[in-house]
Amino acid sequence: MTNKHQIPYKIYLSEEEMPKQWFDLRPDMKELPAPMLHPGTLQPVTAADLAPVFCDELIAQELNTTQRFIDIPEEVQNFYKMYRPSPVVRAYHLEKELGTPAHIYYKFEGSNTSGSHKLNSAVPQVYYAKKQGISSVTTETGAGQWGTALSMACAFFKMGLKVYMVKVSSEQKPYRKAVMETYGATVIPSPSTTTEIGRKILAEFPNTGGSLGCAISEAIEVAVTSDNCRYVLGSVLNHVLLHQSIIGLEAKAALDKYDVYPDVVIGCAGGGSNLGGLIAPYMSEKIKGRSNTRFIAVEPASCPSLTRGRMAYDFGDTGKTTPLMKMYTLGSGFIPSPNHAGGLRYHGMNSVLSKLHEDGYLEAKSYEQTKVFDAATKFARSEGILPAPESAHAIQAAIDEALACKESGEAKTILFGLSGTGYFDMAAYMAYKEGTMTDYVPTDADLEVGFATLPKIG
Amino acid sequence: MTNKHQIPYKIYLSEEEMPKQWFDLRPDMKELPAPMLHPGTLQPVTAADLAPVFCDELIAQELNTTQRFIDIPEEVQNFYKMYRPSPVVRAYHLEKELGTPAHIYYKFEGSNTSGSHKLNSAVPQVYYAKKQGISSVTTETGAGQWGTALSMACAFFKMGLKVYMVKVSSEQKPYRKAVMETYGATVIPSPSTTTEIGRKILAEFPNTGGSLGCAISEAIEVAVTSDNCRYVLGSVLNHVLLHQSIIGLEAKAALDKYDVYPDVVIGCAGGGSNLGGLIAPYMSEKIKGRSNTRFIAVEPASCPSLTRGRMAYDFGDTGKTTPLMKMYTLGSGFIPSPNHAGGLRYHGMNSVLSKLHEDGYLEAKSYEQTKVFDAATKFARSEGILPAPESAHAIQAAIDEALACKESGEAKTILFGLSGTGYFDMAAYMAYKEGTMTDYVPTDADLEVGFATLPKIG
Repeated sequence: MTNKHQIPYKIYLSEEEMPKQWFDLRPDMKELPAPMLHPGTLQPVTAADLAPVFCDELIAQELNTTQRFIDIPEEVQNFYKMYRPSPVVRAYHLEKELGTPAHIYYKFEGSNTSGSHKLNSAVPQVYYAKKQGISSVTTETGAGQWGTALSMACAFFKMGLKVYMVKVSSEQKPYRKAVMETYGATVIPSPSTTTEIGRKILAEFPNTGGSLGCAISEAIEVAVTSDNCRYVLGSVLNHVLLHQSIIGLEAKAALDKYDVYPDVVIGCAGGGSNLGGLIAPYMSEKIKGRSNTRFIAVEPASCPSLTRGRMAYDFGDTGKTTPLMKMYTLGSGFIPSPNHAGGLRYHGMNSVLSKLHEDGYLEAKSYEQTKVFDAATKFARSEGILPAPESAHAIQAAIDEALACKESGEAKTILFGLSGTGYFDMAAYMAYKEGTMTDYVPTDADLEVGFATLPKIG
Repeated sequence: MTNKHQIPYKIYLSEEEMPKQWFDLRPDMKELPAPMLHPGTLQPVTAADLAPVFCDELIAQELNTTQRFIDIPEEVQNFYKMYRPSPVVRAYHLEKELGTPAHIYYKFEGSNTSGSHKLNSAVPQVYYAKKQGISSVTTETGAGQWGTALSMACAFFKMGLKVYMVKVSSEQKPYRKAVMETYGATVIPSPSTTTEIGRKILAEFPNTGGSLGCAISEAIEVAVTSDNCRYVLGSVLNHVLLHQSIIGLEAKAALDKYDVYPDVVIGCAGGGSNLGGLIAPYMSEKIKGRSNTRFIAVEPASCPSLTRGRMAYDFGDTGKTTPLMKMYTLGSGFIPSPNHAGGLRYHGMNSVLSKLHEDGYLEAKSYEQTKVFDAATKFARSEGILPAPESAHAIQAAIDEALACKESGEAKTILFGLSGTGYFDMAAYMAYKEGTMTDYVPTDADLEVGFATLPKIG
C-alpha cells in the first residue's frame, strides 16, 4: 500500500524485515585482496596462527573468501533488536538549506548509547567469545566509541573486559571512561604498569601520553598471557566489516522499498568498518556490472592513507606485532596529528577497501578539519542531529556532491553514512567555535618519515 | 497481518500513524484545576495579562479548558518527523534480569540531540513565536536539556535565542553550553550584568553561583523589556503539557496495535511535563471510568513536592514575579539540595497533575538518589540505554512494581517514560561509582522554611 513516490523522513524496517545474515563482499570481488602474512615466515596466516589472539569463529570469518552470507546468531539478532534497525533518513531539511535538486539520504548509526556503529561488531565479537567459553576480552580505545560499544556488549553477555585507553585520551575524556565503567569495564590508562610492554615504555618515556599503537600492544599482551582471554578489535579487520554489513543491508532494504537507488554512496574511513559495511551490498552490484554507482571514502587531510598513502604490506600496529596486511598505508610509524576525529586517525586501511580503491571501484578524498566542522554545524542546525567529527567528513562530501548537482541541475540520489553522534566531542566543537581549531596537512617530507617504517618485503 | 501476541522489541508508528493533534486532558476532568491568579489583583489572569511575556497562541493554549484536541501545525509535524515517532520498547532483557512475570514497556524520548522529551514543546513554542512575527525568545536552563532543545528549535526556525544558564551549572557543564552555542544560541551565565535584576543580585552577592529562580527573572526581564521578544518555559505550564501529550498519544497508538493496555503508568516528575504528556490519554480513560490503570509520579526525596508538599497557591519562581498557581509546592523559597537530577529540582508541580493527585487519580512516591543510580546502572547494563538521572526515578519505580509482580506472581503490564539519556550527566555517574554520591532528605524543619515563603491568600 506504500506510495512509492511519497518518501517519508525516516524509513524504518520492521523486525521481520531486518537482515538475518551478514554479507561478505569478498566472494564477489574479481580479484581478492592479498592474504594476511605471518610476519616471521611471510607465509599466509593460518587459523592456528591467530588462535591465541582471536576467538575461533572470528578467525574463520576473517579468513573466509567464499561464503557470501553468514547467519547472524539469534542471540546477536536479539541484541540488535534493542537498538536496530537504524533509520535511513531523507535529509529534506538539508536539501532545502542547500537549495539542491539532489535527493540526500543518510543511514544513521548513532542512536545507541555507544553513539556509533561500533556496537554492530562489538555484539557478535563478545557473543562468539562467550560461546567459545572465553571468560574475558581485552581491547584498546582511542576516541572511546569502540571501548564504549564493547563495554555495553560485555555487560549484556556478562563477560569480563579490560580496556586500554590511550592515557591522554582517558585524561581528556573522563566521561567516556565513566560510561565504560558504568557498564562494568575496567579501564586502564595506557601505557600502564600492568603489562611488560607498558612498563618498558614507561621506563623509557615516563611522561608519555600514550598512543593507540602502545595500547594495542598492551591489550594483545594481556590476551595472549592470560587464561581464557582473547583480544578484540573494532575496525580494520575483515570480520569487523562483515558485521558492519548490517548497515548497508538495512539501508538497501529500506531504500528498495521505495525504489530508490543511490547514484553515489559516501562514508568516512579510518580503519574502514563503517564505510565497508555501508557500501557492501551496493558494491556487489557495481562489481557485477549492474550499476554505475560511485563510492567515495572520505578521510582527514591530516591522516590521508587512501589519498596519499602507498599500497603495501604493513603492520597493523606501531609495535609491529600483528600480521602483515596489504593495504593503503602511511607506514605504521606515521604519527597522525592530534586532530578531533580520533576514529579516523589510523595509518592504514582495511585490505578489501584498499583493493577496491586500487582497482578503481572506490574513490577517495580528504578534507581539513575546520571545513568538516563547518559541515557538522550546518547539518546540526538543519537536520537536528549533532554529528561525530568522523561522520562529518561524510557530510561534507555529501554537501559537495549536492552543490555540484545544484550547479548542473541534476537530481542525483546521494546516500551517506552518519556513523555516530558527537556528544562526547564537545571540546572539539568549542575549539571550532572559538576559532582555536587548526588545520594540518602533512608535507611530503612528513609522509616520507612514515613510509620509511614500512617493512621491506619481496 | 500483525500477530497481536508477538510483541516486537520496539514498536514504531509509521509517519501516517503519528498523531496530528495534541490532546488536552482538562476538558475531561471532573473538576478543573483552580485558575492562575494575577499576583496583584488575585483575579484569574487574562490573555492580556500574559501577552507581554508569552506569545498569543501559547496563551490561548494555556487558558484553554474546553478544547480536547488541538491541531499540530504542519511545520511542527515536519520537525517532529525528523526525530519522531519515538519507539515504545518492550524491556524483554530487563524483565529477564529481574525474573519477573510482569511485562515492562518504556516510551523512549531520548533519541534526539537534546537528549530528552523537551524538544516536543520547544518546537511548537518557537514555531508559534515565529508565526507571530517575534524575532527572538529568552529562557533559563538549569541542567541544560531545555536550553539544548530550544537551541535546536531556534536554529531550525532561524529565531534569535538568549539562554540564561545558572552560573554554577554553566561552569560545571561547559559541554552543554557548547551544544547550545553550536546551534547558534547566546548562553549567558546567570546572574549576569545584562539585566537590572542580575546587576542587583551581583552587587549584593558578588560570588553567587546563581539559581534557577534568578535565571528565570533575568530571562523574563529581557523578554518584557526587549522589542519583539518573548519568554518561553520548558515545563510546569499547561501548554507545555499539551505539547508533551504527543508522548502519551504515540505510546497508546503503538500499544493499541498489539492490544496492550497498561495496568500501571509511571513517570518522573519535576515540573510535570514528561509525566503529564505520557499519562494524558490513559488518564482520560480512567477519569471516564473505563480503566483501573494506576498512575505513579516519581520524584527525588530531596525535592518532594507531591509527596510532602502542600496544595496551595504559589509563585512559579523564587523572585515571585509570575502569576500564582494552585499546586503542590514546597514554597518558592525552598532551596533544593544540589542533587544530580537537575530536571526534577523544582519547588512546585504542574496544576493539572497537582489536582489529579489531590483527587486521588495520581499516586506519588519518592526515592533517594543512590537508589536511583542503582536502577540506572542496572537498566543500562540490561537494556543498553544510559538513562538520564531524572528518568532513572521512573525506572526504579517500574522495577519495584515488577518485583512486586514477581512476589505475587501477577503478569501486570507496566509502562514507564524514559524521558532522556544521561550522556551529559557522567559526573553524577562517576560520583555514584566512586561512592561519593550522598543522599539527602529534608527534615520537617527544612520544609517549614520553604512553606513559610508561601503567599498568604484568601
